[in-house]
Amino acid sequence: MTYCVALKLHEGIVFAADTRTNAGVDNVACFRKMHCWERPGDRVLVLLSAGNLAVTQSVVSILNEQVAEHPVGDGPSLATVSNMFHAARLVGNAIREVRSLDGPSLEAAKSPFSASFILGGQIHDEPPRLFNLYSEGNFIESSDDTPFFQIGEHKYGKPILDRVARPTMSLSDAAKLLLLSFDSTLRSNLSVGMPLDLLLYRTDALAVALSKRIDKDDPYFQRLSTGWSESLRSAFARIGGFETDGL
Amino acid sequence: MTYCVALKLHEGIVFAADTRTNAGVDNVACFRKMHCWERPGDRVLVLLSAGNLAVTQSVVSILNEQVAEHPVGDGPSLATVSNMFHAARLVGNAIREVRSLDGPSLEAAKSPFSASFILGGQIHDEPPRLFNLYSEGNFIESSDDTPFFQIGEHKYGKPILDRVARPTMSLSDAAKLLLLSFDSTLRSNLSVGMPLDLLLYRTDALAVALSKRIDKDDPYFQRLSTGWSESLRSAFARIGGFETDGL
Repeated sequence: MTYCVALKLHEGIVFAADTRTNAGVDNVACFRKMHCWERPGDRVLVLLSAGNLAVTQSVVSILNEQVAEHPVGDGPSLATVSNMFHAARLVGNAIREVRSLDGPSLEAAKSPFSASFILGGQIHDEPPRLFNLYSEGNFIESSDDTPFFQIGEHKYGKPILDRVARPTMSLSDAAKLLLLSFDSTLRSNLSVGMPLDLLLYRTDALAVALSKRIDKDDPYFQRLSTGWSESLRSAFARIGGFETDGL
Repeated sequence: MTYCVALKLHEGIVFAADTRTNAGVDNVACFRKMHCWERPGDRVLVLLSAGNLAVTQSVVSILNEQVAEHPVGDGPSLATVSNMFHAARLVGNAIREVRSLDGPSLEAAKSPFSASFILGGQIHDEPPRLFNLYSEGNFIESSDDTPFFQIGEHKYGKPILDRVARPTMSLSDAAKLLLLSFDSTLRSNLSVGMPLDLLLYRTDALAVALSKRIDKDDPYFQRLSTGWSESLRSAFARIGGFETDGL
């Protein structure tokens, strides 16, 4: 499985993805699930992927091929589209293209065509936007009411997001929050694994603020993980107990 | 969906179950998923159920029918078996009986035969035991390494259990912990709903220590829920931020 999450703030967008893939528990590998197309001063687009790795890699390959064929404004590609809605349409079309190529064989083998994506970024002077794309190629967009999207193994890390995520958070707090959401997931589910890819985009920068691979020895992540466990245990100890006097 | 959880301690066993069932989002109802067979001084057995309500209710009906037919030691029933392993076998047999009755029709309608159970309790002087039963009727037993079982919508409430659950906890702390695990689940998933059923069993008591229905106005649960949210937010604020200086 996979866990990817992105949170759109007024200050920008924070993206995080794990790198573990598995085809059975004895076939575990590390693959990048975060892809970035950046042209400083013009655009930053970040794509996170979950699902069948053959499908998601094909989608990314199609998108890259389009960029190579149309690096400037002579045809549609992530490097040339004029806004994020058109970028999401391109990704959706790539998903549909892969389905038309591989779908029948997968179906014949009763293997599901599973793929989902999170696409976020900014093009020119349009405000940053964040989309969640489904395996059918259609998509929804985030809002201040629902500022984050998760794909893959999303349930373990959702309670902390539901409680804390706000579009008014700072980039720094949002990065901390996504890493905590990952920490909960990593502890409870073996199919999500380190290292993680973390990317911070600041509104109107039109360049990546920070892109970092966080491995299990990362000092900040270790401090965060240990500190959060201690905080939870001490909060648990402090909070009023269930009354069992006289039982 | 459903969420049920039970945690076995040296002090006893704590059980909790929600009461929401749904067949589509417009067909939501409240049904008891916690069933208890108690004969003070002799035995306490508690069964939590998740899955297809028609299946799980049939299983409970079969078990009740056996108890009615064999209230004392003249035939196998939850009221007469001599230890918890045999009790788990009885529940497993009841699951298989329902499968043989309803399975073919469900299969014909491509509706899965889904049912899972947690069975815990104590009979005579055997130590308390806790089992997780599958829809095939087979089961596993808890241990000090893995002192809790969850069935139904288990992922949201697992991180806090993974961090805090220990067999050496007090009954009071365990009740608090299970309610917090429910609080996380209730916040993140609409298919799990109040009221909750909570039951505490103390080792060697051979009687239920406490059985309580907790509705959304329950003062302790409200304090716990609010206090935990505040604790998490303040722990989040206190923990060191992700370094974004100079970005």
